[in-house]
Amino acid sequence: MYLKNTWYVACTPDEIEGKPLGRQICGERIVFFRGPEGKVTAVEDFCPHRGVPLSLGFMREGHLVCGYHGLSIGGDGQCASMPGQLPGGVQAIRRFPAVRSFPVVERYGFVWVWTGDAELADPGKLHHLAWAEDPEWAYGGGLYHVHCDYRLMIDNLMDLTHETYVHATSIGQPEIEHALPDTQVDGDHVVTRRFMQNIKAPPFWAAALRGNGLADDVPCDRWQICRFTPPSHVLIDVGVAHAGHGGFDADPKYRAGSIVVDFITPETETSMWYFWGMARNFKPADAELTARIREGQAKIFSEDLAILEAQQRNLSANPQRRILNLNIDAGGVRSRRVIDRLLEKEQQERAALRKAREAKGAIDSTSSAAPA
Amino acid sequence: MYLKNTWYVACTPDEIEGKPLGRQICGERIVFFRGPEGKVTAVEDFCPHRGVPLSLGFMREGHLVCGYHGLSIGGDGQCASMPGQLPGGVQAIRRFPAVRSFPVVERYGFVWVWTGDAELADPGKLHHLAWAEDPEWAYGGGLYHVHCDYRLMIDNLMDLTHETYVHATSIGQPEIEHALPDTQVDGDHVVTRRFMQNIKAPPFWAAALRGNGLADDVPCDRWQICRFTPPSHVLIDVGVAHAGHGGFDADPKYRAGSIVVDFITPETETSMWYFWGMARNFKPADAELTARIREGQAKIFSEDLAILEAQQRNLSANPQRRILNLNIDAGGVRSRRVIDRLLEKEQQERAALRKAREAKGAIDSTSSAAPA
Amino acid sequence: MYLKNTWYVACTPDEIEGKPLGRQICGERIVFFRGPEGKVTAVEDFCPHRGVPLSLGFMREGHLVCGYHGLSIGGDGQCASMPGQLPGGVQAIRRFPAVRSFPVVERYGFVWVWTGDAELADPGKLHHLAWAEDPEWAYGGGLYHVHCDYRLMIDNLMDLTHETYVHATSIGQPEIEHALPDTQVDGDHVVTRRFMQNIKAPPFWAAALRGNGLADDVPCDRWQICRFTPPSHVLIDVGVAHAGHGGFDADPKYRAGSIVVDFITPETETSMWYFWGMARNFKPADAELTARIREGQAKIFSEDLAILEAQQRNLSANPQRRILNLNIDAGGVRSRRVIDRLLEKEQQERAALRKAREAKGAIDSTSSAAPA
Repeated sequence: MYLKNTWYVACTPDEIEGKPLGRQICGERIVFFRGPEGKVTAVEDFCPHRGVPLSLGFMREGHLVCGYHGLSIGGDGQCASMPGQLPGGVQAIRRFPAVRSFPVVERYGFVWVWTGDAELADPGKLHHLAWAEDPEWAYGGGLYHVHCDYRLMIDNLMDLTHETYVHATSIGQPEIEHALPDTQVDGDHVVTRRFMQNIKAPPFWAAALRGNGLADDVPCDRWQICRFTPPSHVLIDVGVAHAGHGGFDADPKYRAGSIVVDFITPETETSMWYFWGMARNFKPADAELTARIREGQAKIFSEDLAILEAQQRNLSANPQRRILNLNIDAGGVRSRRVIDRLLEKEQQERAALRKAREAKGAIDSTSSAAPA
Repeated sequence: MYLKNTWYVACTPDEIEGKPLGRQICGERIVFFRGPEGKVTAVEDFCPHRGVPLSLGFMREGHLVCGYHGLSIGGDGQCASMPGQLPGGVQAIRRFPAVRSFPVVERYGFVWVWTGDAELADPGKLHHLAWAEDPEWAYGGGLYHVHCDYRLMIDNLMDLTHETYVHATSIGQPEIEHALPDTQVDGDHVVTRRFMQNIKAPPFWAAALRGNGLADDVPCDRWQICRFTPPSHVLIDVGVAHAGHGGFDADPKYRAGSIVVDFITPETETSMWYFWGMARNFKPADAELTARIREGQAKIFSEDLAILEAQQRNLSANPQRRILNLNIDAGGVRSRRVIDRLLEKEQQERAALRKAREAKGAIDSTSSAAPA
Repeated sequence: MYLKNTWYVACTPDEIEGKPLGRQICGERIVFFRGPEGKVTAVEDFCPHRGVPLSLGFMREGHLVCGYHGLSIGGDGQCASMPGQLPGGVQAIRRFPAVRSFPVVERYGFVWVWTGDAELADPGKLHHLAWAEDPEWAYGGGLYHVHCDYRLMIDNLMDLTHETYVHATSIGQPEIEHALPDTQVDGDHVVTRRFMQNIKAPPFWAAALRGNGLADDVPCDRWQICRFTPPSHVLIDVGVAHAGHGGFDADPKYRAGSIVVDFITPETETSMWYFWGMARNFKPADAELTARIREGQAKIFSEDLAILEAQQRNLSANPQRRILNLNIDAGGVRSRRVIDRLLEKEQQERAALRKAREAKGAIDSTSSAAPA
């Protein structure tokens, strides 16, 4: 169960550099490519001619050319040409059954897709990411394909208790489980906060302090502020500051912090695309540092995959089993409730839309019948 | 949907050289082996004793011996012996439930099998292949196992427009799509013809001209004459001749041509055995040339596999989707219509056969009941 | 179809040395571990918190700790602690939904599990293995995971005719199929005996004779006495003796013999865990000999796997096909009849148990309702 009338991250620009990209999102097999003016286009990954995936094709002058018989798709997502058609065949080609086109927006260094009702796709509804447009910030990240329900990843990120067990050698530390999290809901947003005082910085954060030119062997205050935003984004303020200087609010000269960025895009009911990364506002021009952070994060985040996939297999094998929702699970539980509420709203929205379409269809057929 | 009352290529003689071969054809798991007088035999790949595939066994004096407990099958497809049976056990062994036997014919360098009603299996219905018995001709080929409906391969071979895209570096050239094909149906046979005049020979054919001692840098005429014959054979006259000398009908001193041979045998609804090859009537004794052509063809034909298997996956995932039948698709479309018509005929044939069998059964049981 | 109210071998002690082991047995996903006093514990492999397999966790002071959020399971199989719970949370933790616990017994060098009704689990019902507690005997063995119905392995072991075909280079010899087996049933036990006189010792046994300091090039008597014991154990007296000295009953100075030990534990309807080994009462302290025998046996027993898995695939693809039960199959056929009879008995037993539980439940609810 995932929302369809919403924007999900589909890919990053490097993935469609000079070639098409086939990716299944929310159950839809989609091909992404950059059209003639560089505008990203997304259509069904199904050639209207013989059904071959268009993503097996290639780019020619901004058109996506099917690799089987050469049908080409233009930047408007419509069939533009087909070999062997008679002169004047362009008219005929325009009457080819359309491949479904999906609204896409390129923003914040990502390509976003809307797999639901196209008429509702409003770029204004995109999650605003201030750091992504601020030159004082740098971002680095990656992508994992994970075989689990996307909500298991939301649970994971909205409860960082697991760091002590899953990431024991990098960001985990026993103090995490002694600091109880506090969860707040504000409309569609859920925030889970956890603060630790006077602790030793764990290896990842000790390295970050050193990277910032700060002592790594003094008592620190640590924070984790997990923010869920629909449909399935979790952005987490994380960091440490030398103890007693205000923690999260400390002056930059005492702190090392950043935002863990998680965009979770459903592929099917039990698989998803996990776009992870880190945004930071220190040394934003230091590409070598970006690469090093990215490498460390890739290793840490890969530790979750085996756990989540085994969890999915166990839940699939025991569909009737209930699991526990403890205090530490509040962040995930509340986020799921937001999703459930929005799913219900979406269902009503789609029913209304269907009704409106039928009414419009009735009027259209009446008026076209009039001349007779 | 495939015809059952027809002959399909099952294997080549080298595949049953001194050992049995297990192969699924038209949904039937069959084991092929050479019996005591060298006659090819085909029976269910299921030992009547404990169900182990007989193809895991070995040959002993023209008998196929099960690799588990040693039951042996003779050249008549009947159980011939079984270890540990009491003296006089041969009578008992003959009463073992029979493994189903399939009609087979060895001809033209292939083993052909009939997986439908055995009483209708007539070797006279075999597709006649004159070149296969003519010493002026040589043949070389291979086998691919492809995970797609066998009809997708027929479509592929009856429309060579795809050469420009799938085989761009060997036999494809832009002129193909400017030469519209012409399709003719004659009873159960479909022929699609395409001619190109005054073109540059593409790499594969330039090499063939040189191999024939002909200039490869002069304008040429090129032909592709695709002939569909039920159940699923596509034989294609292909070649080039120096321009202006009659093309397909040119004198051998101006031309390089051959027959692309495609025997397509269904394995399941969505997989098949693709026996491909090339028959030529120049330098038939040149085994080194046969090997070189075969190697080139293997590479070219392997380029289709990824496309066809991705097409199958896309069609299976979208069973309700219609695809386009354009002018270039006429060859495949007409061939499928022949198959559909023959499938309908076969269904009637089988119903009549069933009725006849029941009538015969009724008479038999009446007459055997008579003495009482 | 397998018995559930019985003891199966689950694992060997080395598999739970300092770490948990996840293994599916009789359709149940179970995690085995050694609790605080070293007692083996078995519970569902499903963390009651979020459903992650507990077998991905680790041992800490005799407790099994979940690798995701740190819930711990004690030696009694109950949840013992959970990070982040409020003071006094132990009471709450004890109210966590219990993970199902399975009766286990460690004996004879194996861990045995009871996957049926726990109240019927009686260690006294364990198959008694005298050799396993006798210092004059040594044992070595291994484990194979095989994708077939466990009963196909019983068939295999209760009819050694297959040795001639499957194990031709080690223990097979043509004489086996000339010596007809004799099968006897005694209650739940089935014994199939086969004796060969004045034969050449096959390679495996020739080596065993030499290992015992005996001539390997003299005529021998050979025996195979296969003993089936429910639920699915096959222990086989095997060996050779110099001819004319009494065969199986010969004085040790003329014989080399041992017990082939086979514990067959169902995993699913079509897969199983095969614990194989050999118990011998010569040179019991010779660890190097144990290792050498084990290595030879591992090779021989691996030869059966491909056959059995192909047999299973063939039977699954032809569910309606009947197979033959010949004289040589009597051992397996009779063993299956014992299993079928016990399955029927078990079903009655479970129905009675269900009724008793319901009656007890009714009384309990009546008495607890009484004060009201």
